[in-house]
Amino acid sequence: MKIIRTVEEMKEFSKKIKESGKPIGFVPTMGYLHEGHLSLVRKAKEENNTVVTSIFVNPTQFAPTEDLDQYPRDEKGDSAKLKKEGVAAIFIPTINEIYPVDYQTYVEVTELTKNLCGRSRPTHFRGVTTIVLKLFKIVNPDRAYFGKKDYQQFRVIEKMCRDLNFDVKIVPCPIVREKDGVAMSSRNKHLTEKERRDTIILHQSLEKGKEIILNGERNSSKIIQTMKNMIGSKKTLKKIDYVSIVDLYTLKDLHYVDRNILIAVAVYFGKVRLIDNIEVIIDAKNNA
Amino acid sequence: MKIIRTVEEMKEFSKKIKESGKPIGFVPTMGYLHEGHLSLVRKAKEENNTVVTSIFVNPTQFAPTEDLDQYPRDEKGDSAKLKKEGVAAIFIPTINEIYPVDYQTYVEVTELTKNLCGRSRPTHFRGVTTIVLKLFKIVNPDRAYFGKKDYQQFRVIEKMCRDLNFDVKIVPCPIVREKDGVAMSSRNKHLTEKERRDTIILHQSLEKGKEIILNGERNSSKIIQTMKNMIGSKKTLKKIDYVSIVDLYTLKDLHYVDRNILIAVAVYFGKVRLIDNIEVIIDAKNNA
Repeated sequence: MKIIRTVEEMKEFSKKIKESGKPIGFVPTMGYLHEGHLSLVRKAKEENNTVVTSIFVNPTQFAPTEDLDQYPRDEKGDSAKLKKEGVAAIFIPTINEIYPVDYQTYVEVTELTKNLCGRSRPTHFRGVTTIVLKLFKIVNPDRAYFGKKDYQQFRVIEKMCRDLNFDVKIVPCPIVREKDGVAMSSRNKHLTEKERRDTIILHQSLEKGKEIILNGERNSSKIIQTMKNMIGSKKTLKKIDYVSIVDLYTLKDLHYVDRNILIAVAVYFGKVRLIDNIEVIIDAKNNA
Repeated sequence: MKIIRTVEEMKEFSKKIKESGKPIGFVPTMGYLHEGHLSLVRKAKEENNTVVTSIFVNPTQFAPTEDLDQYPRDEKGDSAKLKKEGVAAIFIPTINEIYPVDYQTYVEVTELTKNLCGRSRPTHFRGVTTIVLKLFKIVNPDRAYFGKKDYQQFRVIEKMCRDLNFDVKIVPCPIVREKDGVAMSSRNKHLTEKERRDTIILHQSLEKGKEIILNGERNSSKIIQTMKNMIGSKKTLKKIDYVSIVDLYTLKDLHYVDRNILIAVAVYFGKVRLIDNIEVIIDAKNNA
């Protein structure tokens, strides 16, 4: 397994693979890898001869007030895990390699980023789309793998590729959960033991929301209120950012559940912001 | 010569050329071709086996108040000219092919677009960078040719490619002028005879500005004032948008001419907005 630190070397590596006619599967990450990331790597490995993973804690997707400096890092541990999965190369650039002095170009998806996390983190997705487009140009993958835990991110990147005529196939992968249902996240390590126990409510409330929809409830406010009451019952909850019922494709809020939807939540336990979501398919025919 | 109207067919065409290992030279245009455009095509033909030209009047680079509807078109005449130059394919997509329903992704260069035309046309360059990036993804050229009449456009696109890790080589080409010195522009056709005669002053004032710099003047305000007086003497002049002395690379205003610069002007004759510029190299060593 190669560890590559420069853009030039990464491009050269991919060029050789592409010349051999073989596909590249790509898993972009911010490192501190858990089973969620590794599930993406395994899926990539199933579908592509060569898998490239990137590890880059991307500063442009963090606001000045956010946890960039606290974001956990473990290059050595990550490398060992990726080697075991049969990854061909890890791309670990420095910040200056990606954003040289005088860097000033950004890519923005305007509509899909207006709701959910885009509402409370207004510069976040601009940072995400910019780094992902750059990585796509550097790694030149045939397929790229994204976890559905960051559901909005998946839809935004899918849209960016379609709009900007990129041929990279965006492959969404299921959320990987701990035994108690909590979605895996690098940020979970910042939770106290008590907070960690309370976060179980996120997945439970999502399952509850789904259940009452499948039992016939169609009024979004009622479903959201039920979920907020559940989440609000936890002592270590600091703040609910949002509990939203949105169209599965446009991510726009829906007053009534009259199509396939996503229920998405973002909450703070202590200082840690956590997100989770669940798809609810009421119309299997239109689940493209 | 092929006329291609869909993204898919254009990608397929370029893919075949690239597989043969031969380079593609690309000249993006908005059509209504004059000798300025054809000089780009000839330069492209010199340097590449295959030349592709696009004709697309890009709506996203016009503000609602601007002259999108009046922009002149002549597909038949343009095709004949390009055929004569040995162009391999013209890409002429519909608006819907480029911007399908629900299109929402934009590319922005933030600093280089703040001065000059970016100041009076705040959404213009976002439209330019977005369409050029899309065309680069569709046509996949090795080199792309841009006229220096749109000097800021050339610098902005060069920056976008560097920042977003595109390998397309941006080739700037000299301004092509009529016999009387007026820079060729598709918009010249909208001028009355009298206005057309008065526009000679633009190039004359730029030459004058250059001359007094090369004779030792370093104070930008003085140079600009001399030029404004010249331009202002013309009866059909409607408005001066700007006369600016800027750094040749950053395009930032300079109070003193202490390095290589661009003098750039934008003025209205009647309803027609015209631009022109001249490079002044006082330090040949640093003219990278």
